[in-house]
Amino acid sequence: MNVLIVYAHPEPRSLNGALRDFAVEHLEAAGHTVQVTDLYAMNWKAAFDANDVTDRAPDTRFDPSLDSKRAFAAGTQSEDIAREQEKLKWADAVILQFPLWWFSMPAIMKGWFERVYAYGFAYGVGEHSDTHWGDRYGEGLFAGKRAMVVVTTGGWESHYSPRGINGPIDDVLFPIQHGVLYYPGFDVLPPFVIYRTGKMNEARFDETRIALGKRLDELWTTQPIPFRRQNAGDYEIPALTLKDEIVPGKVGFAVHLAHEG
Amino acid sequence: MNVLIVYAHPEPRSLNGALRDFAVEHLEAAGHTVQVTDLYAMNWKAAFDANDVTDRAPDTRFDPSLDSKRAFAAGTQSEDIAREQEKLKWADAVILQFPLWWFSMPAIMKGWFERVYAYGFAYGVGEHSDTHWGDRYGEGLFAGKRAMVVVTTGGWESHYSPRGINGPIDDVLFPIQHGVLYYPGFDVLPPFVIYRTGKMNEARFDETRIALGKRLDELWTTQPIPFRRQNAGDYEIPALTLKDEIVPGKVGFAVHLAHEG
Repeated sequence: MNVLIVYAHPEPRSLNGALRDFAVEHLEAAGHTVQVTDLYAMNWKAAFDANDVTDRAPDTRFDPSLDSKRAFAAGTQSEDIAREQEKLKWADAVILQFPLWWFSMPAIMKGWFERVYAYGFAYGVGEHSDTHWGDRYGEGLFAGKRAMVVVTTGGWESHYSPRGINGPIDDVLFPIQHGVLYYPGFDVLPPFVIYRTGKMNEARFDETRIALGKRLDELWTTQPIPFRRQNAGDYEIPALTLKDEIVPGKVGFAVHLAHEG
Repeated sequence: MNVLIVYAHPEPRSLNGALRDFAVEHLEAAGHTVQVTDLYAMNWKAAFDANDVTDRAPDTRFDPSLDSKRAFAAGTQSEDIAREQEKLKWADAVILQFPLWWFSMPAIMKGWFERVYAYGFAYGVGEHSDTHWGDRYGEGLFAGKRAMVVVTTGGWESHYSPRGINGPIDDVLFPIQHGVLYYPGFDVLPPFVIYRTGKMNEARFDETRIALGKRLDELWTTQPIPFRRQNAGDYEIPALTLKDEIVPGKVGFAVHLAHEG
């Protein structure tokens, strides 16, 4: 299978760098083909702006959505954007690997999504009507592909537990796992989280590699997070609220998991 | 009072640009002093990396936290970082204004926090012991300052309602409002959210300006979001889980609001 690792850490001689190298070797040893988008190493342009559309008339007003739509359709996107889109089309699975900085992905990775996730590619796809609100949240161009987050954090596991002060890790990652990955159709696997990186030692590093290797071996068999499909009957359309009879009275991110019913 | 507007939109002739201009005029007319950090206009460097520490020996391993700590303490940070830190110290209130892109702030703004929020400035502040886990979540260098998010989104209000498919807006913004703003001590005001920006017209724009003006007039009197203080007795330390007797059995972001008790 084809695996794309989108990776963001400024220092290759870091825990993240070591785990990235391990993942590449492990996947290749299992017979997979791996490409790595190493955002810092390639000096990825993080900010989405008018320069990302190559055929704009000077001094015209830049509209992030509409210019993205036009450039994607016309093939006038920046070449670096188009190249990353090809990698996404090529991949059977995508691994996002990053340190959790301020409760989200590093800016350079956020900017990869803002630029590569064009209108017509990752959003604005499909019919919008009273029964179908775009091919998204379970449908879309990436349907059938798998995605997994591999994330490191200095905080303790308890700080990210259900009643931990940082919020439950599943909720902290919801805007990424549901909003960025499930939205254009990926099946999203449970994340691989490494806590308390300041206390890493040789023994823990060995355990971590073994655990990550197991998750990579199970990339094609692990049950995805059971996010609810937008257009399969659970939501009112176009309000896109969960129907009253489904987990009645409950609110929050967790209601968008089917097993909560 | 001193107000810092940290603003990210690539097109000044946009809804965001118009609201930013309105906010500056409105605040100045009320006698406040305003500075704007216009991230796209200043071509802000989004990616935090080894170049942000000016006195590093070549080929040494870059540690984002420890290098940030050393550079902040020694005064060897990049000049653009130090300048933004001065603005934060100067401000009595900070307004973050941005379009919601993929359920978070634009990359260029995320990179502003990653670079400006140095170790010793916005995190890693204060004693860490069995009764006090750093000056954070209600304490820290920005205690006594106020912050407010002003955010636009193409989605409908219902899509971000308590049972809306994107998740409740308060939960979508929790990593920013609690994790980025409350963490170093800001009192965080309820956000000002403009939905369905594709359907903006003259009448709605007038209403929006009036509503934003009112929120700006009330910047000093609005009740902040009642996030729980980390070191005030609600949490076990160092596990940093909410004590069993507080909203027993409940989980998720909302338990960190005091009125949930």
